[in-house]
Amino acid sequence: MKAYEDLLNRLREIDLIGQIGSLLSWDQEVLMPKKAAPLRAEQLAWISKTSHERLTNPGVGELLEEIESVGDVGEVQSANIRLVREAYDRATKLPTDFVEEMAIHRSRSIVSWTEAREKDDFSIFRDDLAISIEQARAKADFFGYENLRYDALLDLYETGLTVERLDPLFSGLRENVSPLIKAVVGRGLRPDLSWVIDNNWSQKSQEELSQSVAEAIGFDFSAGRRDLSTHPFCGGPNPDDVRWTTRYNEDEPFGSLFGSMHETGHGTYEQGRPRHLDFQPAGKANGLGIHESQSRLWENQVGRSKEFCEWSLSLWKKFFPENMEGVDSDQLWRAVNLVEPGLIRVDADEATYNLHIMIRYEIEKRLISGDLQVDELPDAWDEMYEDFLGIRSTNSSLGVLQDIHWSMGAIGYFPTYTLGNLYAAQLLEAARSDLPDHDEQIRKGEFSHLLNWMRENVHSRGSLLEPADLIEEATGSPPSPDAFVSYLSSKVESLYGVSA
Amino acid sequence: MKAYEDLLNRLREIDLIGQIGSLLSWDQEVLMPKKAAPLRAEQLAWISKTSHERLTNPGVGELLEEIESVGDVGEVQSANIRLVREAYDRATKLPTDFVEEMAIHRSRSIVSWTEAREKDDFSIFRDDLAISIEQARAKADFFGYENLRYDALLDLYETGLTVERLDPLFSGLRENVSPLIKAVVGRGLRPDLSWVIDNNWSQKSQEELSQSVAEAIGFDFSAGRRDLSTHPFCGGPNPDDVRWTTRYNEDEPFGSLFGSMHETGHGTYEQGRPRHLDFQPAGKANGLGIHESQSRLWENQVGRSKEFCEWSLSLWKKFFPENMEGVDSDQLWRAVNLVEPGLIRVDADEATYNLHIMIRYEIEKRLISGDLQVDELPDAWDEMYEDFLGIRSTNSSLGVLQDIHWSMGAIGYFPTYTLGNLYAAQLLEAARSDLPDHDEQIRKGEFSHLLNWMRENVHSRGSLLEPADLIEEATGSPPSPDAFVSYLSSKVESLYGVSA
Repeated sequence: MKAYEDLLNRLREIDLIGQIGSLLSWDQEVLMPKKAAPLRAEQLAWISKTSHERLTNPGVGELLEEIESVGDVGEVQSANIRLVREAYDRATKLPTDFVEEMAIHRSRSIVSWTEAREKDDFSIFRDDLAISIEQARAKADFFGYENLRYDALLDLYETGLTVERLDPLFSGLRENVSPLIKAVVGRGLRPDLSWVIDNNWSQKSQEELSQSVAEAIGFDFSAGRRDLSTHPFCGGPNPDDVRWTTRYNEDEPFGSLFGSMHETGHGTYEQGRPRHLDFQPAGKANGLGIHESQSRLWENQVGRSKEFCEWSLSLWKKFFPENMEGVDSDQLWRAVNLVEPGLIRVDADEATYNLHIMIRYEIEKRLISGDLQVDELPDAWDEMYEDFLGIRSTNSSLGVLQDIHWSMGAIGYFPTYTLGNLYAAQLLEAARSDLPDHDEQIRKGEFSHLLNWMRENVHSRGSLLEPADLIEEATGSPPSPDAFVSYLSSKVESLYGVSA
Repeated sequence: MKAYEDLLNRLREIDLIGQIGSLLSWDQEVLMPKKAAPLRAEQLAWISKTSHERLTNPGVGELLEEIESVGDVGEVQSANIRLVREAYDRATKLPTDFVEEMAIHRSRSIVSWTEAREKDDFSIFRDDLAISIEQARAKADFFGYENLRYDALLDLYETGLTVERLDPLFSGLRENVSPLIKAVVGRGLRPDLSWVIDNNWSQKSQEELSQSVAEAIGFDFSAGRRDLSTHPFCGGPNPDDVRWTTRYNEDEPFGSLFGSMHETGHGTYEQGRPRHLDFQPAGKANGLGIHESQSRLWENQVGRSKEFCEWSLSLWKKFFPENMEGVDSDQLWRAVNLVEPGLIRVDADEATYNLHIMIRYEIEKRLISGDLQVDELPDAWDEMYEDFLGIRSTNSSLGVLQDIHWSMGAIGYFPTYTLGNLYAAQLLEAARSDLPDHDEQIRKGEFSHLLNWMRENVHSRGSLLEPADLIEEATGSPPSPDAFVSYLSSKVESLYGVSA
């Protein structure tokens, strides 16, 4: 079909432009000299403008209409058309004035959030946040929705996601995980961490450990790189050039190792994309939730397992012979699985993390619906922390002002973090039933079985299906909190001897 | 003037595209993972196609004609118009078929040259070289010329360069430098290099030495980088992001230091461009000859001077305390100034280097005019080496097949290397008359005086003038071999006690 061929050629160019932009961004974060920032911004603006022009060219709309009128076209073509339609609509439904207005407000809002946070004064950010919420509502109206305005915002970050789908996931978590945490806290048990705290952990050895683990997992370093950056991320232009970063703190070695495993998870996903669909939307990695499932799988489900600690102990001892003297795999396992409610999301452990997200989700839902007013937000925040985590922030910087997301207008983003955790647990449960020797394989450092399972059931499926459908295809069940709750319960029981 | 404004806007975009391409190329040479090569080639091809489309857009031709019809427009505008006209004509005068034909031939020709070199058999490369010469002639005819076809090729690499201008430069060199070298060789003197040869020179210390010297010269590392690559070069997108590379050999420390000083010279030139002319052709660094003058200035005229050796000795002793024990600045100076005729251009010393270039220039001139046939080339090569350097290659790989340039169709390029050496000497001579304490400044490591002189008289002048005019403006005389010959004679005399 000529129209489809034409469209694919246009997509090829749009994708190439995106690849170039990815490299510029990576370079900007990792090694660009300081003074180069203003001209790099101009280069990136040109890339973004050029790509936007290509995508919103009326020819794309005409080709789409022509192709959409055809009946059954097979899995690949129908996924490509669905995804281009989605991108085209998102790029064309918002009036140019409104897009500019949002951009200007975003710059201003980041500034007021930064100041509010530094001065620990929510009132400085209050007005800008109120405008952001108004803008998010307007945006939802431009995009359209069936039931709730907030659904249109959720859909931006995870296609097909709605409150109707999310509510049962979060209530499942709330009902099960919150009591679990309270039980752990009640027991008052805390592993001895003196061997971690009392030692210095050299950056060079941390780098060697990260590199060895990433190689063992199966990240292909001839098609990617590991570098250092202030904010760890995984980027790069295409599956042959996947670049992830980490950072090091010589006071403790876990941040860099689990950060590296997290980014390695993202990286193996990118490297496993279906190459016959290069340059096509259907060949891209699926939404944020699925991407996060791959990073959380290796970081938590694998990386913090007893079996992984048993396997990795010899690496720990190789790279930190003195620090690790007398430390056994059980101590290592307990140290990397400390459960402790805290105020800060990004520092949270596996058990408490999703409660941080749930609080943000409930708040966003109410802010968008109008059930919660901006002035009521700080108190609502603190009360929910008290309710679900049993702690209360003493100031706004540690409370409602801690995340950058709202200042950037990213309302509807947070839930994808929890989706990642739930998907990871669900995928591992499914993989286990195909891999009866999974625990033994991890204990021996044979990660290829699990990676190949993910390659086959997740990576190679690109964006052919919507995220929830991909999870159902891979695991046999729609997204659900059950696997995660059961994983967490059994872990907490074996760590602390408590159950909810 | 509206037309000029329009043109500047188009140039701004073309320049931004070029900046992006520079970053992609730098990354490709320095740190791109192996498997990323094919898709990087597609990204670069897109950049190059997009930039070519922008430049050859008929609108550019129309704007040019409109602007060219206006009278006196001042220095900046007239330089911009001259340079865009030149670029536009070069991009549009060659028929598309011919450009493709050349590209295809170039790929094939590099392959046959590589094979010929490996098998030491000129006949494998012979036919492709003959075609390259035919193509170079055809290219010259498309571009047009006043006197000689070869002039059109020279002009491609240094605007305004002709045989009429070059012949006197090379004959000045030939008449003076060749006897000088024979006199040195006749004396049979060779400094004691055992302290260099018998030691190992750690890469880390070489890196520290290079970094310290580049910083001392005045390269701004907050607007640039130093990295490692197989083939040293200086690149990067713009004056705020200048990236040069070097390579290390632990058997000897001079390659990396003088390579670093060479690239630092290129780098300071880029950093010194006139920033009010950002995105404009007039604000770019001038042609290859001027660029090479800046690299050769720091590498040779400064780097191999007695005063620099006196200053840098303490750095050498700091980074190589054991290797440098008992070595004084005179020994260092003699070691970095060994004059010895050899067969290989890239390994040549300051005295013999330009004779290598002169031989190539004479050969190219005759090949293009038809005075020399391809089959006569290998013998002609060997005879000229015998004549001017007193040595003869025992095989083609060390002789006529040593350079990649002809296989790439780059005929007319070589002379810019010698121009760089001559310009460097001429510029330093002029700078000295403004800086009477130059030698003392170098001895104290005060490089800012010389750098500022170059900033003011060369860097900040961008491409406002044609290269030869820039040299005349900066030094008061047109390009000439005199300063170089006098510099070299006095150096050889003080090193070897001989004169021609």
